[in-house]
Amino acid sequence: MDHLSRLKTFEQTVDQQGLDGFALTHPANLRYLCGYTGSNGLLLFLAGRRVFFTDGRYTRQASEEVKGARIVIAKGPLLNDAVKLIGKLRAATVGFEADYTTVAAAAQMRKLVSRQTKWRPTTGLVMQQRMLKDGHELRTIADAVELGAAVYEEALKAIWSGVRESEVAGRLEYAARQAGADGMSFETIVAAGKRSALPHGRATSQPIPRRGFVVVDSGVILRGYCSDMTRTVHVGRVSREARQWYKAVLEAQLAGIAAVAPGKTAGEVDQAARVVLEKARLDRYFTHSTGHGVGLEIHEPPRIAKAQAERLEPGMVITIEPGVYVPGKGGIRIEDMVVVTASGCRVLTPVTKELIEI
Amino acid sequence: MDHLSRLKTFEQTVDQQGLDGFALTHPANLRYLCGYTGSNGLLLFLAGRRVFFTDGRYTRQASEEVKGARIVIAKGPLLNDAVKLIGKLRAATVGFEADYTTVAAAAQMRKLVSRQTKWRPTTGLVMQQRMLKDGHELRTIADAVELGAAVYEEALKAIWSGVRESEVAGRLEYAARQAGADGMSFETIVAAGKRSALPHGRATSQPIPRRGFVVVDSGVILRGYCSDMTRTVHVGRVSREARQWYKAVLEAQLAGIAAVAPGKTAGEVDQAARVVLEKARLDRYFTHSTGHGVGLEIHEPPRIAKAQAERLEPGMVITIEPGVYVPGKGGIRIEDMVVVTASGCRVLTPVTKELIEI
Repeated sequence: MDHLSRLKTFEQTVDQQGLDGFALTHPANLRYLCGYTGSNGLLLFLAGRRVFFTDGRYTRQASEEVKGARIVIAKGPLLNDAVKLIGKLRAATVGFEADYTTVAAAAQMRKLVSRQTKWRPTTGLVMQQRMLKDGHELRTIADAVELGAAVYEEALKAIWSGVRESEVAGRLEYAARQAGADGMSFETIVAAGKRSALPHGRATSQPIPRRGFVVVDSGVILRGYCSDMTRTVHVGRVSREARQWYKAVLEAQLAGIAAVAPGKTAGEVDQAARVVLEKARLDRYFTHSTGHGVGLEIHEPPRIAKAQAERLEPGMVITIEPGVYVPGKGGIRIEDMVVVTASGCRVLTPVTKELIEI
Repeated sequence: MDHLSRLKTFEQTVDQQGLDGFALTHPANLRYLCGYTGSNGLLLFLAGRRVFFTDGRYTRQASEEVKGARIVIAKGPLLNDAVKLIGKLRAATVGFEADYTTVAAAAQMRKLVSRQTKWRPTTGLVMQQRMLKDGHELRTIADAVELGAAVYEEALKAIWSGVRESEVAGRLEYAARQAGADGMSFETIVAAGKRSALPHGRATSQPIPRRGFVVVDSGVILRGYCSDMTRTVHVGRVSREARQWYKAVLEAQLAGIAAVAPGKTAGEVDQAARVVLEKARLDRYFTHSTGHGVGLEIHEPPRIAKAQAERLEPGMVITIEPGVYVPGKGGIRIEDMVVVTASGCRVLTPVTKELIEI
């Protein structure tokens, strides 16, 4: 991983923003820029210097992980030490992450600095850089997606009428642990029967009914990077109507994927999926957006949603996940992760989307 | 659960703060006050009205869960709808959660309201109420602690020289799922041998060595409430020195528990545990605080730490968890959850603290 070039790119951004310095604490941003994976870290850019602050619990971890910055082990709150350095170097304007700093924390920050220093809120400066994945990131994400697919297929074996949703989720998560995942990238969704009509149906202790859809939406974290996939299978005989719903969702998902290309807006991709469901008169049951970026965090920009003007670029990694949820009956969602390439996109998720009947 | 009385108590707080209204979005606060367990919710208190906003994904869930508030399904960002109502009712000062609102979100909030309305940052207003658990909460927490203890005892069977730390964690988490836990309350810690000297040793793929301590720190979530417990066992023959360390930590833990009573400060409880380790000349290896509150979130106030002036009150639920970590050798931590009663405290964690040798 080339942390040094990531750090230098960010230093240019800080410069372009007319800032004398920048203080970062958001864990995913710290990991991206300097490699640190612990908690309680602060990375300070100041007059060509880079200083990383943490506390005594992480002395060894910081020395093993942090790249391109001097390490300072603070005795008290990290900000106190950072502010001393800011004062010493008489920095006039220091940027901070307005997206991750609470109003209460910002009030505390303002109290600590002397009058000559102003904190400047900024949004999305590191994220803008993180949105375009480099080669190392793309390989890691592909590995995470592979692992996520393998544990889904393990869990699929457990899906059977009468088995609790939580048992399916438990099998999936245990398989992820055994396969070396750092953890799950979000709470596993297993929603069976009527519950499949809940787009965010966390696994409960309810047994899978004799007949109906089962939506499984799950992801793992591998070496810091998230995977995200959804498949919907059917237990028992599929009605003609349910089969048509499934077919429409799959067509919408394929249309979304087909629309992904550099220069296209996120809104156009959303629209490409949505229009298929409109034609099938199911669009009123598609109650969420088509997808989102994925990386060190499970939800990153760009948002693939109605009227989003953000243009896709090679190196972005996004989900395409339309769904149809018919209240009281059932729902279907199909989700892949794709990477935007120079000419279109490459689907990362290696799992069939044909309707599986159990 | 008496959400209505919780809502009314909070309304009194809003009144006492001289606010015309209050907008809440922090998930644990929403769940506590009105029962909602989904994401993307906003609860607005305004001129005697209570309105809950969410989006189309949660229509059904909100109608099943939300108590004591009118439900509005918003088309766009929830705040837009909330602000319309604030404008219509000409509220002058509306409070918000400064501890959970980012600087970026607050800037957005300020842009949306008309000049006649001011947002006022507040800290800890709901938490102050949440800190004192009611009867229903205490019963749920006791159930969560029981479940956490049962799955720990299941995982204990897997501890054996040569078994990977992650295998032990995986067994524990799988047992939790099977027993109906909503999930884990934090990343399971299994730290064996020299790694037991890391207070935050997440389970890795390293095998348990032939000899040494194994620290297992884990917790489940049951019906929204967290459990938290730590036990330390020993694999192989225990040296006399290691046995003395264990004995000192256990004595410190018992002294901490003995010090818990209404009217005592959190600092006094911390000191009671710390002084035992001082006498054993091990206090420099006790590098963290003695405990913390637990409830809907795994870390809640009060902090049981040095010089904390917060006074304990009946209904608070806290952990008592001193530890000793000798770098390069090993570490021990013993942690129970206790509830503060009228006369002292009741230990919730039903697991032996005698040193188990495996």
